[in-house]
Amino acid sequence: MDLVTIDEIRAAAERIRGIAVRTPLLPCLWADPDRPLWIKPENLQPIGAFKTRGAHNAIARLPENVRSRGVVAYSSGNHAQAVAYAAQQAGIKAHIVMPHDTTAVKVDNTRSYGADVVLVPIGERESAAHALAEKHGLALIPPFDHRDVIAGQGTVGLEIAEDLPAVTAVLVPVSGGGLASGVGAAIKALCPDAAVIGVEPELAADTKESLAAGKRVDWPVDRRARTIADGLRSQPSELTFEHLRTVLDGVVAVSEDEIRNAMRVLATRGRLVAEPSGATATAAYLHHADEFPGGRTVALVSGGNVDPALFAEVLGARESLAAP
Amino acid sequence: MDLVTIDEIRAAAERIRGIAVRTPLLPCLWADPDRPLWIKPENLQPIGAFKTRGAHNAIARLPENVRSRGVVAYSSGNHAQAVAYAAQQAGIKAHIVMPHDTTAVKVDNTRSYGADVVLVPIGERESAAHALAEKHGLALIPPFDHRDVIAGQGTVGLEIAEDLPAVTAVLVPVSGGGLASGVGAAIKALCPDAAVIGVEPELAADTKESLAAGKRVDWPVDRRARTIADGLRSQPSELTFEHLRTVLDGVVAVSEDEIRNAMRVLATRGRLVAEPSGATATAAYLHHADEFPGGRTVALVSGGNVDPALFAEVLGARESLAAP
Repeated sequence: MDLVTIDEIRAAAERIRGIAVRTPLLPCLWADPDRPLWIKPENLQPIGAFKTRGAHNAIARLPENVRSRGVVAYSSGNHAQAVAYAAQQAGIKAHIVMPHDTTAVKVDNTRSYGADVVLVPIGERESAAHALAEKHGLALIPPFDHRDVIAGQGTVGLEIAEDLPAVTAVLVPVSGGGLASGVGAAIKALCPDAAVIGVEPELAADTKESLAAGKRVDWPVDRRARTIADGLRSQPSELTFEHLRTVLDGVVAVSEDEIRNAMRVLATRGRLVAEPSGATATAAYLHHADEFPGGRTVALVSGGNVDPALFAEVLGARESLAAP
Repeated sequence: MDLVTIDEIRAAAERIRGIAVRTPLLPCLWADPDRPLWIKPENLQPIGAFKTRGAHNAIARLPENVRSRGVVAYSSGNHAQAVAYAAQQAGIKAHIVMPHDTTAVKVDNTRSYGADVVLVPIGERESAAHALAEKHGLALIPPFDHRDVIAGQGTVGLEIAEDLPAVTAVLVPVSGGGLASGVGAAIKALCPDAAVIGVEPELAADTKESLAAGKRVDWPVDRRARTIADGLRSQPSELTFEHLRTVLDGVVAVSEDEIRNAMRVLATRGRLVAEPSGATATAAYLHHADEFPGGRTVALVSGGNVDPALFAEVLGARESLAAP
């Protein structure tokens, strides 16, 4: 299987210019001076997550006669909003299939970008999306299992390499693995001495187990659903797993308390609102320093779409900067 | 009196490169489509506020034989941390004079950047700083009343003009006026058709009153101290007032409730932690649209150093996106 190349990622960067924000690396004065930290704040993308990048690249890559008919996606999370927004920017229609029990605010946000939202029972999401695609001849934009999506997410890694070529370690959340695959491909091409470390919640650490086993290990949905990090409950596909086994130097698993603490630190020290999934890489920096190479570290904050009540609750507790 | 020129601002931009973050403009999908909004997130600067820019430029402009002796500043707020950090980056000593009752976290943060903190009774801040400067032959870095500080803050305006040359209105908080003077000077030079609008809390609207009167009107400290926006309790100097009367097209005054609501909107929609002062320009966008030209609007978020308990309390209430 051919992995996504740096040329595909560079081409994606050209396509998303002006659509995705070119996020800066933010130096963290509160970090351990012996292993300085920069945050890559992808929560500041227009829809609040990196997924804008992959969705836009995938849509831009469609042949004109296909793209003009519109696109379809199934998601209850950030991918839904990313596809809706990217379609709006491309001037085409998006049909987003969501489970019946999706919170109203997510449905409203997706509709606010001009998308048609189709609500179905949770078990019928995928089949409903495929049926829609077939009926109307629409392209389906998958959340991670597609090389154009991976190349789009890889632009995050390209920017890190441009801004901090001497980076030592890049910490990146892993769920379906699109982001980690793309970022890893870019970093390994441009900064071959840097370690790329995946981060998962302990409660959804299927990729850590899979890489140790040398093959994909399935965790039942109910098991993965226990984590507060609701954006990290997917599992890699064959395509992304093949990338991860090549580009990752390790996987760190973080606890629920560590995720909550990282959300507090990002808010009070980094002035950023991170969703639980988005705070996992920072949690790995704060609480698992012994598990990856020291030196110049980048932690990717992947998204910031958190329920305000949960965020306020998390903020109410005391933060802790782990001892160096 | 000669105002700060665009050449001085361009030179400042060269000096602060690599010290201050080149912040992006963040498009706000939640804004009124008829008057699109971009946030300039200066809360993401290393010390959590734009003041890094002016402090670094002023220190870099000192003659080498003066700079090497160190610098002194008096402040209980973001300027203290900005001077401490800029001095650390320049490899020199900073002496920061703070009132006795400064909160421990601000004192600790300032010390964490290697500064000597001198605690004095609040009424003696200024005299203590001048005495220190004289005794040790140190340069005093003022928070706003200095053209090198104004030029440094002006780099925010330079970046706005580079990233959105067709901007229609720039909303900028006003306190001592260093930021508004510098941003206004840059915008008027590069985007002469854009309006530059100052924003003050209603409870500290001395500049609005002063501009209407055509001369500086003094509001007693006790009166200005009522606002939650603790970074906006200063008043312009002769130098900054001369800038403001030339570069500002108007001043909008926002209520305390509007400031709190803007903090919520910035957190939930913008994924940014803003301090009350930092949220005032966004409050003006949300609640005072009829007081300035419509079109492409930039709201400057000046800082994000907010007490976590206050922030959590503000988040607990309901946000409101004002009707267009």
